[in-house]
Order: sequence, then C-alpha cells, then structure tokens
Amino acid sequence: MCSEFDLIHRYFKKSHTDAILGIGDDAALIANTPGCELALSTDTLVSGRHFFADTDPYQLGYKSLAVNLSDMAAMGAKPRWAMLSLTLPEDLAKHPSWLAKFSEGFFVLADKYRVQLIGGDTTAGPLAICVQIIGDVSAGQALRRSGAKPGDDIWVSGQIGSAALALQHECRQIILESDEFTQCLPALLAPVARVELGQHLIGLAHSAIDISDGLLADLGHILANSGQAACINMDALPCAPALKKRLQQPIALQCLLAGGDDYELCFTAPGSRREAIDRLAVALQLPLTRIGEIVNGTGLTVKDAQGNPITMEIKGYDHFRT
Amino acid sequence: MCSEFDLIHRYFKKSHTDAILGIGDDAALIANTPGCELALSTDTLVSGRHFFADTDPYQLGYKSLAVNLSDMAAMGAKPRWAMLSLTLPEDLAKHPSWLAKFSEGFFVLADKYRVQLIGGDTTAGPLAICVQIIGDVSAGQALRRSGAKPGDDIWVSGQIGSAALALQHECRQIILESDEFTQCLPALLAPVARVELGQHLIGLAHSAIDISDGLLADLGHILANSGQAACINMDALPCAPALKKRLQQPIALQCLLAGGDDYELCFTAPGSRREAIDRLAVALQLPLTRIGEIVNGTGLTVKDAQGNPITMEIKGYDHFRT
Repeated sequence: MCSEFDLIHRYFKKSHTDAILGIGDDAALIANTPGCELALSTDTLVSGRHFFADTDPYQLGYKSLAVNLSDMAAMGAKPRWAMLSLTLPEDLAKHPSWLAKFSEGFFVLADKYRVQLIGGDTTAGPLAICVQIIGDVSAGQALRRSGAKPGDDIWVSGQIGSAALALQHECRQIILESDEFTQCLPALLAPVARVELGQHLIGLAHSAIDISDGLLADLGHILANSGQAACINMDALPCAPALKKRLQQPIALQCLLAGGDDYELCFTAPGSRREAIDRLAVALQLPLTRIGEIVNGTGLTVKDAQGNPITMEIKGYDHFRT
Repeated sequence: MCSEFDLIHRYFKKSHTDAILGIGDDAALIANTPGCELALSTDTLVSGRHFFADTDPYQLGYKSLAVNLSDMAAMGAKPRWAMLSLTLPEDLAKHPSWLAKFSEGFFVLADKYRVQLIGGDTTAGPLAICVQIIGDVSAGQALRRSGAKPGDDIWVSGQIGSAALALQHECRQIILESDEFTQCLPALLAPVARVELGQHLIGLAHSAIDISDGLLADLGHILANSGQAACINMDALPCAPALKKRLQQPIALQCLLAGGDDYELCFTAPGSRREAIDRLAVALQLPLTRIGEIVNGTGLTVKDAQGNPITMEIKGYDHFRT
C-alpha cells in the first residue's frame, strides 16, 4: 500500500505559483499582499457527525473546502491558500479510488478559486477532515460580525433551509417528492460558498456572517457581537418552494430558521445601499433578499405576515447542546 | 452542560494584543511583520494513535502545541499565533475538569512563547486535536530541508530516542529501571520544541528538520530534498544512558535511529560554523552534537566506531505503512 509520503505526493502535491514554499517542508511560507491583512479560519468535518460514513469522497473533498471558503466569504476575504489535515481509516487509505476522488473534489473547487494547498498532515484514525483556509483582505476592510448598526437592513443571499430539508428527507423525518429532493440536495452535498458576494460587500455591508448553524443562531452572533437587536419577517425569508409549502410543519420551520449547512451569507447594510445591493444581485445572478432590520435593544423577534411576533423554541446547531 | 460557545468562551478565549481580530468571528485577522514571511504548519494528534485515550489532558494540551512549535523551530520561525480544532467525545465535553486541564496545558506553553490562540473549531466526535501554527521569519531566511550541501556537518540537538524508549517501556517491549523511565518519560509526555535554537540557527545552518518520525527518516527528508547523501557515526549519536547501555538490543537501536516524537532538531551547517554552533550550545545550555557529514551521492550510511558501515532494516514512523 501507499506510504504517507506517497499519498501526499500522488494526490495532494501540485505545482503552485504564489506561495514562497508549499508542501514538503516543516512549514509552508507565504507573504501577504502589501496593504492587506490575512484572514485565517479552520473547519473540521467528522464522519457520522457532519456527513454519513458512506458519503461519496468526491463530494466530501468538495464540501470540506467549500465550508472553509464560506468563512472567507463571510469576511469579504479572497481565499488564497489552504492546509488539509486528513485523518483516514486504513481501509480508506488502502482503497484505490477513495483518495483520488477526494482530492479530485477538493481540487475542483480549489482550482476554481485559485486556492493553493500549501501543507497539511495525514494520520490514520477515524475519518475526519480538518481544513485551514487563509485569504487576504484590504487592511481594515474585513466584514466583521460586530459592525451592525440600528436601522441596517438585514439581508440573506440565495435560499435558506434547503440543505436541512434534504437532510431531514434522508433521515425520513419529512417526505419530499422526488423532484423536490433533487432541487434541495445540492445545497447539502455541494454548497456554494458566496466568495464573490463577500468580496463585493466590502464597502456596502456593515457586518456579515455565513449561515452554517442556522439563520437564528448565526444572525444571533451578529446581534451579540454588535450589541444590537433585530426584527425579521417570516414571510420574507427566501426558501425553496418545497420548504415554503410545508412551513406549517414544525420540522420544516426548524429547517428554515435553524437549519444550518446552507452557507448563504447573512449581512447587514444601511438603507442607503439598497440600490447598490440590488444591482449586485443582478450582476452576480444571485438573489439577495431583505429579511428584516437591526433595531436598538436586545433579542431577535420574528414577525408573521400581519406583523405579529411569533414565539418559538428553536436553536441553531450546537455540537455540545444536549 | 456547556454549549459549544460556552466552551470556547470559558476555556479558550483570551485577550490578545497583536492579532487584529482573534476568536469570535468567521476568521481571525493578522498582518505579518514587514520584512518577514509567514510560516504555517499543522499537526494532528489522534487518540489511540498518537496518545493513549487516558492520557492526562494537561499533558495533551501541552504536547499538542509543542509538536507544532517544533515545526516553527525547524524553520527558524518565531511562533506567533495558533488555531485549535478540537474533536471531543461528549463524555469529555461534559467532564468538568478535562477541558480546564487541557486548556491549562495548552496555554502554559502558549504563554511561554507568547503564542496567541486566534481561532479554531470544536466538534463532537472521536478525540482528536488539530493545531495550526503560524509564525514569522525574516524574508528569505527560513531553514529549509533542501539546503544541505556536501561537506556540511550534520548536527542533532539534545538527546534522541528517549521518547521512543519510554513508550516501549510502557508497551512492555523493553523493561527500564524506575529511575531510567523517569528520565526518559518527559521526552514522551512534554517534549521541548527547540524554538530558540531554530531562530539562532538562521545564518548558521544550511538546512534543518525536526525529528518527529525518527532520525533516519527525517534526515532522509533533508537528503531527498537537498539531493545529497550522508554518512553518520553510530557512536556519536547523543542518547540517554538508559538507551546507550541497551543498544545491543534491536528494539533499543530502533528507538535511537527510528524513534520519533523527541522533537529535537537535526540540521546541517558548513564546517566553518562549528565554533559558532558550539558557542550557541553553551549559550542555550543545550547539547549540540555533530553526528556525521553530508556527502555527494545518494543514500544514508551509518558507520560503527571502527568506521564500518552497518546494515539495518529500519524505517521511521509512517501512518500508512503496513
């Protein structure tokens, strides 16, 4: 079978142009662009927790990078480099095509964004994938969670809840029609990180976050970090028709408000930017929807079509909440 | 029990001074020192593979950072920031003191080197610790594996083989006296990353690597990356008396030549630097021992006291070698 070094060379060592030193030494060397700061983030995917053990390796390679790209998107940063720590059961390391497919999925996305894999680690053990992403962003310009201001519109990109809906269907908690499932599944398997959107929001948005744990939880982080409250309109939330028509079911409502894993961006911007943001939506061919408003105070209120507050017991995904 | 966010706030969020943005957003923000490059590395420790499942959490926190600091040492870089991805079984997350002790061990070492934890990830799953380390090094000055030149002396810091010897004792493959075990155990539990040494070797050494997989394997990386061969003298290898007196046993020889996990540095330097390196050893109160020489050609020859080549079947640690 392949050695650890063979694995790295065969599947992960690619030529690269703008790292000073890539894979193959004790550390990689990079330099940031003058006038830029470096944005760094890491996300781990664990078998049985973030994905089913039999998930297609191509999709796993793709998604492990996508969720990290999403963190760059949420900062408005341009992703540039990645490191990959792969913990791999021996049967998968022995499997001739598993790593080939995993690396293919990873590099399809890496190449799309010109992200270079500059280092990492391969270890035997229970399947887990830890990716670190490094990007750059103009000094002082990064989109933080802490910048929301009273009066800001709250926006969401794309549609939310589709990934959670597809997952609930797979878990037989909800039954979708075959075409509905087909429409929602890509959000779960191959989420699109809103990298271009994030970079274009610099100068427009006051704050941003990616929706990985669910709208309420992630918007809640913006509110907590900004010291603000918010009011959102249930009817305005953009979601797939398959979800919209089931919103009377509590589990569907849960998908919409607390279903993570969509990796859309939630951001806030002053009302003066509405036209610019609408133009951006057209330019990127990506729906951007106003879902509510930042207000003074604390807490997050969800209102129905009549403007009445809805009371709910809903939480975002938390690994250690019982 | 604690939520994921409570865990992060309680145990891992510390104030920091020179990151632009630390824990608590989608990414951390840093800027490198003008004239410096950034060195980045990552190392994962997996339960049952790199440590026993019942390892003291303080030591685990300590060691998970130490092995990463060692990569900075091997580049001659000054470690500055770290990210921590912790995959934690629910029983440990619930355990009141496990995380407290883990973070205490981690921060004892982080504080010693003024390394700031700027981000990470907590996930439920089989225990694994993935640390990313980021340091800086003067532009163009990093110690690479590829710089060894014919005629270079080969040096090793400290003593090698102690960590492997202690592990073999714990696995009952070798029986040490109690005081011998006590002397070797710290190398296994709390290895000292040679961070100061690495930084001082800039301008002196042509190449460097940390000995994590064993002397032969790691020196082998220098040779492969530099396109050179080497000849080392068995008798010159610095090791603990407990190991020295057992070198007739194959398993002890294996500890010396292929026992990783000591995190000493192996480096090469021209003969003209011998005096400077000897002075450095005195200044750092750290033995630095010449163990051989880089020569033209390919391969790694080990010679006995009489200068005769020794033939051995020994490999360094490889996660996927059967």
